Amino acid sequence: MATTRFSSVLSSIAERGLSIMGLSGSGRKQADAAGIIELCHMLLSSKGEASGIGLSFEILSQYRQLDEDEKTKFFHALGQDFSPDRDAVESTAKAYIELPSPRNLAALASATVPVRQELLMRLNQAPDATRHLVNMRADLLARIKHDRELELVDREFVQLFTSWFNRGFLELRNIDWHTSASILEKIIRYEAVHGMSGWEELRGRIDPEDRLIYGFFHPRLGDEPLIFVEVALMEQMPGSITDVLASNQETAVEAANTAIFYSISNCQKGLLGIPLGNFLIKQVVEDLQRNYPRLKEFATLSPVPGFARWLQQARAGNGDTLLPEDTIAAIEAVGNGEWWTDEKLSRSLEKQLVPAIAWYLCEEKDSEGRPIDPVARFHLGNGAKLERINWAGDISTGALNASLGIMVNYRYQLDEIERNHEQFANSRTVVASASVMQSAKAFRNLIKKADVARKRSEAESAEETVEDLTV
Amino acid sequence: MATTRFSSVLSSIAERGLSIMGLSGSGRKQADAAGIIELCHMLLSSKGEASGIGLSFEILSQYRQLDEDEKTKFFHALGQDFSPDRDAVESTAKAYIELPSPRNLAALASATVPVRQELLMRLNQAPDATRHLVNMRADLLARIKHDRELELVDREFVQLFTSWFNRGFLELRNIDWHTSASILEKIIRYEAVHGMSGWEELRGRIDPEDRLIYGFFHPRLGDEPLIFVEVALMEQMPGSITDVLASNQETAVEAANTAIFYSISNCQKGLLGIPLGNFLIKQVVEDLQRNYPRLKEFATLSPVPGFARWLQQARAGNGDTLLPEDTIAAIEAVGNGEWWTDEKLSRSLEKQLVPAIAWYLCEEKDSEGRPIDPVARFHLGNGAKLERINWAGDISTGALNASLGIMVNYRYQLDEIERNHEQFANSRTVVASASVMQSAKAFRNLIKKADVARKRSEAESAEETVEDLTV
Amino acid sequence: MATTRFSSVLSSIAERGLSIMGLSGSGRKQADAAGIIELCHMLLSSKGEASGIGLSFEILSQYRQLDEDEKTKFFHALGQDFSPDRDAVESTAKAYIELPSPRNLAALASATVPVRQELLMRLNQAPDATRHLVNMRADLLARIKHDRELELVDREFVQLFTSWFNRGFLELRNIDWHTSASILEKIIRYEAVHGMSGWEELRGRIDPEDRLIYGFFHPRLGDEPLIFVEVALMEQMPGSITDVLASNQETAVEAANTAIFYSISNCQKGLLGIPLGNFLIKQVVEDLQRNYPRLKEFATLSPVPGFARWLQQARAGNGDTLLPEDTIAAIEAVGNGEWWTDEKLSRSLEKQLVPAIAWYLCEEKDSEGRPIDPVARFHLGNGAKLERINWAGDISTGALNASLGIMVNYRYQLDEIERNHEQFANSRTVVASASVMQSAKAFRNLIKKADVARKRSEAESAEETVEDLTV
Amino acid sequence: MATTRFSSVLSSIAERGLSIMGLSGSGRKQADAAGIIELCHMLLSSKGEASGIGLSFEILSQYRQLDEDEKTKFFHALGQDFSPDRDAVESTAKAYIELPSPRNLAALASATVPVRQELLMRLNQAPDATRHLVNMRADLLARIKHDRELELVDREFVQLFTSWFNRGFLELRNIDWHTSASILEKIIRYEAVHGMSGWEELRGRIDPEDRLIYGFFHPRLGDEPLIFVEVALMEQMPGSITDVLASNQETAVEAANTAIFYSISNCQKGLLGIPLGNFLIKQVVEDLQRNYPRLKEFATLSPVPGFARWLQQARAGNGDTLLPEDTIAAIEAVGNGEWWTDEKLSRSLEKQLVPAIAWYLCEEKDSEGRPIDPVARFHLGNGAKLERINWAGDISTGALNASLGIMVNYRYQLDEIERNHEQFANSRTVVASASVMQSAKAFRNLIKKADVARKRSEAESAEETVEDLTV
Repeated sequence: MATTRFSSVLSSIAERGLSIMGLSGSGRKQADAAGIIELCHMLLSSKGEASGIGLSFEILSQYRQLDEDEKTKFFHALGQDFSPDRDAVESTAKAYIELPSPRNLAALASATVPVRQELLMRLNQAPDATRHLVNMRADLLARIKHDRELELVDREFVQLFTSWFNRGFLELRNIDWHTSASILEKIIRYEAVHGMSGWEELRGRIDPEDRLIYGFFHPRLGDEPLIFVEVALMEQMPGSITDVLASNQETAVEAANTAIFYSISNCQKGLLGIPLGNFLIKQVVEDLQRNYPRLKEFATLSPVPGFARWLQQARAGNGDTLLPEDTIAAIEAVGNGEWWTDEKLSRSLEKQLVPAIAWYLCEEKDSEGRPIDPVARFHLGNGAKLERINWAGDISTGALNASLGIMVNYRYQLDEIERNHEQFANSRTVVASASVMQSAKAFRNLIKKADVARKRSEAESAEETVEDLTV
Repeated sequence: MATTRFSSVLSSIAERGLSIMGLSGSGRKQADAAGIIELCHMLLSSKGEASGIGLSFEILSQYRQLDEDEKTKFFHALGQDFSPDRDAVESTAKAYIELPSPRNLAALASATVPVRQELLMRLNQAPDATRHLVNMRADLLARIKHDRELELVDREFVQLFTSWFNRGFLELRNIDWHTSASILEKIIRYEAVHGMSGWEELRGRIDPEDRLIYGFFHPRLGDEPLIFVEVALMEQMPGSITDVLASNQETAVEAANTAIFYSISNCQKGLLGIPLGNFLIKQVVEDLQRNYPRLKEFATLSPVPGFARWLQQARAGNGDTLLPEDTIAAIEAVGNGEWWTDEKLSRSLEKQLVPAIAWYLCEEKDSEGRPIDPVARFHLGNGAKLERINWAGDISTGALNASLGIMVNYRYQLDEIERNHEQFANSRTVVASASVMQSAKAFRNLIKKADVARKRSEAESAEETVEDLTV
Repeated sequence: MATTRFSSVLSSIAERGLSIMGLSGSGRKQADAAGIIELCHMLLSSKGEASGIGLSFEILSQYRQLDEDEKTKFFHALGQDFSPDRDAVESTAKAYIELPSPRNLAALASATVPVRQELLMRLNQAPDATRHLVNMRADLLARIKHDRELELVDREFVQLFTSWFNRGFLELRNIDWHTSASILEKIIRYEAVHGMSGWEELRGRIDPEDRLIYGFFHPRLGDEPLIFVEVALMEQMPGSITDVLASNQETAVEAANTAIFYSISNCQKGLLGIPLGNFLIKQVVEDLQRNYPRLKEFATLSPVPGFARWLQQARAGNGDTLLPEDTIAAIEAVGNGEWWTDEKLSRSLEKQLVPAIAWYLCEEKDSEGRPIDPVARFHLGNGAKLERINWAGDISTGALNASLGIMVNYRYQLDEIERNHEQFANSRTVVASASVMQSAKAFRNLIKKADVARKRSEAESAEETVEDLTV
Repeated sequence: MATTRFSSVLSSIAERGLSIMGLSGSGRKQADAAGIIELCHMLLSSKGEASGIGLSFEILSQYRQLDEDEKTKFFHALGQDFSPDRDAVESTAKAYIELPSPRNLAALASATVPVRQELLMRLNQAPDATRHLVNMRADLLARIKHDRELELVDREFVQLFTSWFNRGFLELRNIDWHTSASILEKIIRYEAVHGMSGWEELRGRIDPEDRLIYGFFHPRLGDEPLIFVEVALMEQMPGSITDVLASNQETAVEAANTAIFYSISNCQKGLLGIPLGNFLIKQVVEDLQRNYPRLKEFATLSPVPGFARWLQQARAGNGDTLLPEDTIAAIEAVGNGEWWTDEKLSRSLEKQLVPAIAWYLCEEKDSEGRPIDPVARFHLGNGAKLERINWAGDISTGALNASLGIMVNYRYQLDEIERNHEQFANSRTVVASASVMQSAKAFRNLIKKADVARKRSEAESAEETVEDLTV
């Protein structure tokens, strides 16, 4: 509570600092990148503390008023103006090569560190600065996609954020109906997997005794969650999201033996690549176990966001995998009308597509040998096991488009997590249940058959051509 | 509050991590530096998270059990085993010299960063790790004094601590009689200027309405204060510490117009050199102003810890300054008996010694041109003004030994702080009141006279010698 | 925080208590009044503590399951079964008449206290009991209107609630966007003056810096507010609710000099008649003054809920006041169409109706000599002054129906509150501004004129009759 | 936290109220009972709220300045001036006898309630009033012992306190080294059983993991504990207080299976007779069970404060029980020197005195049939079982004087507590273990023998006398 009282102290010091420099008040001109860069140089050369805080505050405020073009200019200037001095690097490098002493090494190391790093650390003095810097990096990342030159600017953000968001600084919190509205509205806004229409729906996910949300917070980001996970306590592992979200499914907490993680949302785009999520699940499992000793199983109910895209590419022949005819027919059938109302049809589609998705999850890998499905990569990388594939797990339009309505359970077994994790990290082994393995294997046979068929057909048509020629 | 609940979660994960690695439990052998270094290598190569936390926890625990010799060995191993690879630095340096591209710069920069840095960041995952690392650095600093080779090991500590203890992460808190005993006992222990005998004395410094303590805390150090300042609200600027500490001096808060900072204590030896203190006073001034709008003056009542030492050296002729005879006589008189009971004697000593201390504070500088007195350096560097010198301000034995009983008021004027600070930073200007300046000037004349007298006497004795010779 | 941890301890004890008595678990029959009354007798004779808490818990749970008829039966039984014993009262009364000793007085006093009081106190041991008892009284009050016999049952509720909700036990709290959702949803639900459609509208009333809500809470009711007041900081006293609620009206807090209380809502029907509200405003004024020293004026913007009803009765000739013809015409015009879009018409209606409402507020009194308008009674009784009448202050349908769209400012002047309050309490003096007084006086003349005219017309028609007769 | 902010609001209102009445400020005369009583009459007739709070505040302040004599006068005036009106009671009594209607009953009941009750409720409005009223009652109770006339004044205190300190309002809290110094210093001060010399000793009772303190608090008494219990988690039921308090006895919490309540202290003399304690132990047992599921036994290690006094009276022949000669010899031996260093002697004394104390605890009853030992009465009344008698359990001087050094374990068995409690409440049954029962029975035989012996000796001496006479 003392914190709140003192939070405005910092703002006063910033104000005072600005007024000392004659920068405060109204008569300021429209913010632009060049002006901000000039302030950044002032900040790096300033010695006064209040003026330093004032400048940081002013820079971050002006930055937020920039339009998209000026922001781009700002990042480019960051890349050019605050990089290491080439001559200094060269001369210290030469000195080290001549005499590799600790002193020369230290000089070389210092010379290679861009002043950008010092700049970011000084900016972080301003009130609320960490939050603004996280948002600044989000802007930067949006540009990097199209502008690889900016990648080098990101380096110092990553280094500082890795240090500031070091696991030890993260705070696990329980989010419930007694949590402040200020935090809860952010949960509504950031939920990325199964969106909420508003407060009543949120309430349904935190107020019942068997529904929980846990989040990671950081002391300097205040009410801003970094990442959160939604949990349902249930009597068995659910196969469909309806089992979890339907409001009349409330379980007596005493009877619950399974904790289901049914939604994990990253909240801060500016923290992309700073590892937060895997650690969250482990801590939550630990806390759940302690508070609900009857819980025996911990698992997710997860989407398979990349499945449809992969199928499409495979049909287009872009990948290594050749889809069997029946699979292609099934994909088309899924796109046409409400098959789930026709149980027989549904069964036959399931028979085609479950092996395909098993194959996709277990065998389709990216350039580093990891599953191409991002959710699979996340949980398997965390040490979970691919437990079960659930046909018609989510028949909302979005889910049908992304994963043909299939959902997956990844299972967290406390005694196995670390071993699975190490295996995955070292040899990219995907741990899956026997039945999922079987499905994937079945699909392998279909592919082979399809391949053989194709080759045969190619051979035949080649023969035909030959025959033609012989005419 | 949620934090408390979750704090033990981390320990459980650490325990689990250790047991996975077969390291937990009793059968462990006596800790030694070599064993810990081995664990450090394991930590750097480990990929599992629980095992990483477990290893960090184990390393920090074993470190605390080391005896002094083994700790020294550990630091030396840290310096040797986890430094940058010489070949890698050389080859990347050469590549950069050949082609100074961003990519080659990045490669060179990476090669110069010791893995020690990654090691310290990983260690920081363990429960309570930041506290243990701060203590570890305290051990390191104690060794560096005698063993300059260890300096390079300190570099990564400084870098990480500067980032972790970045001002933005510090929390200002009010410490009063409602504060937890766990924090208060540390205040008693860490008070370094006017020590407290126990709880009752502490109570006298926080429970009266006109006595306050403010401290900086860090989210990861929990109840450990980083630095704190003790404040008395008074009706005028006091000249003697008795005015402040005497229990019957309570001021009606409504009548107070002056806030006196009468004690500032650094608590963490392991944070030496990480800047904390100057910022504290500024925030406290801001907060006091807000809560006690009647306050008009902010000043310290400070010791002059280096005065006696300097006098001694000057007498021994080690410095540039030649002490006048009367000053020397006065110094001796101060050491002999209770002069403060004899008002006339006290006055005459004051007349001799106040100019001397004014000179000492304003004119005696270190190699960087800053005052040699550490307290003067601190406050003047903060932007305060040397306002007043108080004869017989503290006649406790310690104070008599260190500063001949003299105390000083440094004054913080809100409108001047930044200007003073910049002037000091740029041109080492010491800002002092007219009367202090006058005293220093008076002493300058005395020195000159003494110098002249000495030269004359030397000349005379030379003449005498000459005369002798002519005989 | 400790509280939360321990709150479930009480429930466990209650459970244990019930199981000791063989009452816990499923096999219980449908709750009815007779069964509960039986449990009440058990509770009064029980000596065990766990069993007492268990019984209280069970009684309150079963009560909540009763249908309306059974609740009525329960209250009648409360009135009959737990009243003082007639013989005991008689004999102790006789003993006292014979010998009016302290001992005999004490015996008589004890005999007159119904065991209902002890029963309610024992019920209050159960977890959450106070809240359930407040709701029970709400049920009772709803019945008393039609069933005066139950009034005697209310006596003990009033006595205990007066003691439990003694001002000293009430907690003033600031309600803002950082407040828990659990409290905020109750604010939405209980707002009785200017209803809110949902969370976004609530946010507009607490999140802007110049909009505040204060509420009274009670340690045993947890998140349940007792009463709350909504405040707007403004640059002048507003005349229309639109000035307050329009979302684009945000005032710079620094510029605000006026605090407007624009809505006060009682939350607990079961606390009717237990005084809470007047004290709330005084504490809020005190707190506002402290936190916003620039505030100079404190006033309400209030509805006049009884005005239209009074006009109707006056037109029907039920009261003492005879409405002038022009007033009646104006009332009708207000009911017909959107007069506020026609400025000239609006002005002419204002001229008629403002004097009427001034008269209504200042002169129309209830049987105890207090204003018949409940809101006027509340604020004038609190020591406020009737400052200004605002034509077209609220043209929502409800407000047009209740007060012809007029709103009123009651002004709280710190130096006058107590004097006004005492005057009102002692001599029913209504304190009003000169202009309101003027308006009321003007209306008095109109009434007199109307009266004279009527009497003349009656006389004339009487004469005509006479004439007729003389024909 | 909001609470703190608002606590001074009340003081401001009180100040304002006083200044309205011209009572504030310095020029007040010395407080005396007559003046305060006059203010009490003003308070009862005051209608203003601020003035009411101001008056209450003033009355309570002046009361605290009274000397002992004036306080006595004040209580007598409270008894005389604020009692029910004799005529009103008589006339309403007569009316009821004539017509015992509900209305007449209500009138009679009202007439018998002293205005003292209304006075105390109004006093309770002032800031901190509840605390001051509790202290006022402590003063009253100290007088009642010698002045039975004041008993009637206590009646309204008891009624209001019973309502205000109704169990539902009490808050259980854990007290540990993180608790505020303000609370901890009260724990040191109030500890009544095994006194603490200061903060270090307190720390030893709350900081180790296996040592806990729980207390009851009340929302209106702030940091003032009402009652607290000290707990040690141990591996077996200890027989000596040294086993508990010795600092090197720390138990691994994981190994602990027994929770020992070794000290219970009431803190507020002014709450004597308001039941708090028994409920505390039950809640603590419940909380311990939840947090330390390995705990199997809950017991006290208690003194027997009345044993020595009873022995003395028995020796003096004041009671019904005649002490055997050997017992008397043992009592004397205990008073002479350090018998505990002589194991053989110690054993023989134990053999004599353990049966005596078993008898004392089980058989010596007060006028209501309850054990005369207050600690036995408390725990047995709570539902505990007298489990074991420990020879030489506490050989501190105080304990030797009060109980000949013997300590007792009362055992709380969760499944038995309520049954034991009901049995004790209904039939005064003392539940004791077989071995204690045996000891008591053994002593019964000794008494009988002693009685027989005495009678025989009397008979003999009578015979002798006869013989003499016959001479």
